[in-house]
Amino acid sequence: MIGEKRNVKNLWEELEKYSASDYYPFHMPGHKRLPKNEEAVLPLHKRFPNLLNALYRYDITEIDGFDNLHDARGLLRDLQKKAARVYRAEESFFLVNGSTGGILSAVSAVAKEGKKLLMARNCHKSVYHAVLLNRLQAEYLWPGKIEEFEIQGEISAEEIERHLCGRDDICGVVITSPTYEGIISDVGRMAEAAHARGVPLIVDEAHGAHFALSEKAPKGAVECGADIVVGSVHKTLPALTQTALLHVRGKLVDREKLKRYLGIYQSSSPSYLLMASIDACVDFVEAQGEERYERLLAFRRLIDKNAAKLSHIKILPEGERRDPGKLVISAKKAGMSGWALYRILLEKYHLQMEMAAPSYVLGILTGLDTREGVERLLHALEEIDREISEERKERESAAPKEAEDSIAEEIDGGISKKPDRQLIEEGEADDIYSVRPAASGLSIYEAAERGKEWIFPAKAIGRVSGGFLYFYPPGIPLLVPGEVIDEKLISRLEAGGKGDGYLTGMSEDGRVCVLTEDI
Amino acid sequence: MIGEKRNVKNLWEELEKYSASDYYPFHMPGHKRLPKNEEAVLPLHKRFPNLLNALYRYDITEIDGFDNLHDARGLLRDLQKKAARVYRAEESFFLVNGSTGGILSAVSAVAKEGKKLLMARNCHKSVYHAVLLNRLQAEYLWPGKIEEFEIQGEISAEEIERHLCGRDDICGVVITSPTYEGIISDVGRMAEAAHARGVPLIVDEAHGAHFALSEKAPKGAVECGADIVVGSVHKTLPALTQTALLHVRGKLVDREKLKRYLGIYQSSSPSYLLMASIDACVDFVEAQGEERYERLLAFRRLIDKNAAKLSHIKILPEGERRDPGKLVISAKKAGMSGWALYRILLEKYHLQMEMAAPSYVLGILTGLDTREGVERLLHALEEIDREISEERKERESAAPKEAEDSIAEEIDGGISKKPDRQLIEEGEADDIYSVRPAASGLSIYEAAERGKEWIFPAKAIGRVSGGFLYFYPPGIPLLVPGEVIDEKLISRLEAGGKGDGYLTGMSEDGRVCVLTEDI
Repeated sequence: MIGEKRNVKNLWEELEKYSASDYYPFHMPGHKRLPKNEEAVLPLHKRFPNLLNALYRYDITEIDGFDNLHDARGLLRDLQKKAARVYRAEESFFLVNGSTGGILSAVSAVAKEGKKLLMARNCHKSVYHAVLLNRLQAEYLWPGKIEEFEIQGEISAEEIERHLCGRDDICGVVITSPTYEGIISDVGRMAEAAHARGVPLIVDEAHGAHFALSEKAPKGAVECGADIVVGSVHKTLPALTQTALLHVRGKLVDREKLKRYLGIYQSSSPSYLLMASIDACVDFVEAQGEERYERLLAFRRLIDKNAAKLSHIKILPEGERRDPGKLVISAKKAGMSGWALYRILLEKYHLQMEMAAPSYVLGILTGLDTREGVERLLHALEEIDREISEERKERESAAPKEAEDSIAEEIDGGISKKPDRQLIEEGEADDIYSVRPAASGLSIYEAAERGKEWIFPAKAIGRVSGGFLYFYPPGIPLLVPGEVIDEKLISRLEAGGKGDGYLTGMSEDGRVCVLTEDI
Repeated sequence: MIGEKRNVKNLWEELEKYSASDYYPFHMPGHKRLPKNEEAVLPLHKRFPNLLNALYRYDITEIDGFDNLHDARGLLRDLQKKAARVYRAEESFFLVNGSTGGILSAVSAVAKEGKKLLMARNCHKSVYHAVLLNRLQAEYLWPGKIEEFEIQGEISAEEIERHLCGRDDICGVVITSPTYEGIISDVGRMAEAAHARGVPLIVDEAHGAHFALSEKAPKGAVECGADIVVGSVHKTLPALTQTALLHVRGKLVDREKLKRYLGIYQSSSPSYLLMASIDACVDFVEAQGEERYERLLAFRRLIDKNAAKLSHIKILPEGERRDPGKLVISAKKAGMSGWALYRILLEKYHLQMEMAAPSYVLGILTGLDTREGVERLLHALEEIDREISEERKERESAAPKEAEDSIAEEIDGGISKKPDRQLIEEGEADDIYSVRPAASGLSIYEAAERGKEWIFPAKAIGRVSGGFLYFYPPGIPLLVPGEVIDEKLISRLEAGGKGDGYLTGMSEDGRVCVLTEDI
């Protein structure tokens, strides 16, 4: 195998060398690297010759010299070792099925029959899916709340201690840090608490792979002592979508079992393009990390400085356990929903944000943003904020008691043809994540396997859910199979974003899935 | 959502339009489509500007207008409908985690607790993995054998009938057709047999996605009546590695359950590059199918015509239930192993074949091959064949009784520094797939969960395997967790390719994994 004792390579370079060679492919992929003397190989080849040639030319499979991801002994082993060094892990693995594949593998590696998984309720759906696949019982850790911004806060390390105290039926702990909104939990204390009971801690660091950029960044979960850490290099670093890294350390995780599941949940034909982009991203972290993180921080400071001048729109300021790469832009005091603000930013200013929530909009800032983009956002927020002030002043002098309901529609200048979502009453739909549905006693797997029917929400109250219900993004379940459907949840969904395409788990005509039999 | 009632789009076109727009990304991916005014964004940017710009420029996530693979209601729904039309399925799904993700989803969709899966023993490891994940018992259908070429033959539809007769404990049937070597089973009769008992038939058509190219091609499994069909569009068609399609028809498969598992086993951040390449491939099948299939057939006829003139090397000829896109090149009568032939083709002629087996080499021929490539292969085979004749003649006249063992090494002209694998005695290692290890009574899941140790093969005979053992490629398990390790298997492995990097499941120092406790 190539790469064993030589200097560590870069995968793009290796692919480039290979594609420039005269080796002829009697192997898959079937595109045969798009032979150059062919005209219009694909129907769109004439329109996109550079794109298609570049893509397919480097797209190979596990041929001689390029190792095998699922039994890495050469080039890919070396590249994964490089990633482990940069991330200060004992071992790191390339993930080509996203953080999803990593989370499924991590939970499966620690799962033990008949045991429970202690997990944060604000975990991504993939953790719930892992609970289903492994037929575990889930025990939830509920996050705190940052009231002013109506976002979920930290998971408490003390609560983990309390849950684990005197217990021997918990096979693992899973939390998300940082969250989508950038809230970082005290992973160090959690790891201590879990390790004191011999329980492994898995951290879904999908949103924090960029913490490796700099010593000035928040400390990553690997360094804090977590046993398995999964980070999406595509989310906040320059890797291609669907790529991630899994890091492992310590003795609590059965490495054989972990590797077995990595080989199960990921394609046996992993994409070398995706792997090369992971590798290039690791090089980026090492070569440009400090400089790029400084750049991110400079943009962040500029944004916070300008945001302080706004009267109605608020941005969650930087803080000790907050990720500076997340912009939580609250529309609450601006008298409009997060969704309305999202739509104005998109349609009037051509700013595509990451997510809209009932009361805020989320943006992701990375070391690759441009001054133009950041200034466009600041200009947009200032303009919207000013228009709200003017509008309010006008109304106050003209008809002081008039409802403010239509402000949002007026601001977006009639660009949006789609009727805006209902404005949210304060404290109603906005804390939808604080509804805690009652458990029926069925595990996710048990409920998923039962007979189901689809009925309208009004009739579903008190019934046991047969499916997941979540906004996507962020993909955090509001309701899980086996939980009892709550009146509060339904009323908040009705007030919120039902049927707008972001809510997943409802049928297109707005029904929810319930178990046919009572239990 | 875009795309609902308009003409069906092409995903590259949509991505191109978007990348040319001025929408600024405050969302993932973190590369922000590699801003143009940035110099050397990635460490290798200066060396590969075209490649990197092309790749990252089109790499987006589920932003407005681009739908959501896991809840497709717009553009991606339309594109999947187009795929279903071209493949004559009722519904088709894009797969970004390879056929692997499709197979796991298909088996999980039909799995029922406590039931058995009737599966061909020559299935890909992903089917075995699905058995493990769903804690099923596997019941095996053993393929026939094409003696002359020492490859596995068809699965018998009659045998499926016999297995199903009077049974109600089988939840599904899974077979592979065509096989890696191109052997096609009678899927039509199998579907009838399975449907007569109300059991769904899953066909792993990973190697046969190109059957959709032309009416002249073998009939695809969807048309033959299979309930779920998984086809790797990257293997024999021009799509990027790690892409596939899953097709479904009929009423025996719970579509809700299938979709649930497709959402579980695949990344929640699917790559738009991979999806665009699936879509472009569907367009290719529709626009150029007939012409490309004719081209494949013409090359195949040329190869068969020339192969008929060879004295020692034999190519499995075209046949009624054989895929013309597979070249099984037997080295058996040439007095060398398949691995030796593989290495000569690679090192002397720069022909990278798909796979080497003990007695043959496998090549994949698609509608994108070139005359130059095909002619280089024919030239190589003729030259090797002629040299064997000359060598034999020389030996016969000089020292008639001398062993022919070193012929292969001489032919490759000393290029290969790696010591060649042992030459295979006829009938020894070459039918390794016909060894049928005894069952211990443990299911794959039960065995995988038990305590394990790693010991040398000689000491492992009679012990219960704790792991899978397979050559990769093809990734077909020789030994499965819960099976008793067989003396015959070990001796054939010793004679075959142990420890050469193709055999997966052994430790680097050549140990195998067994259960610590007897059962």
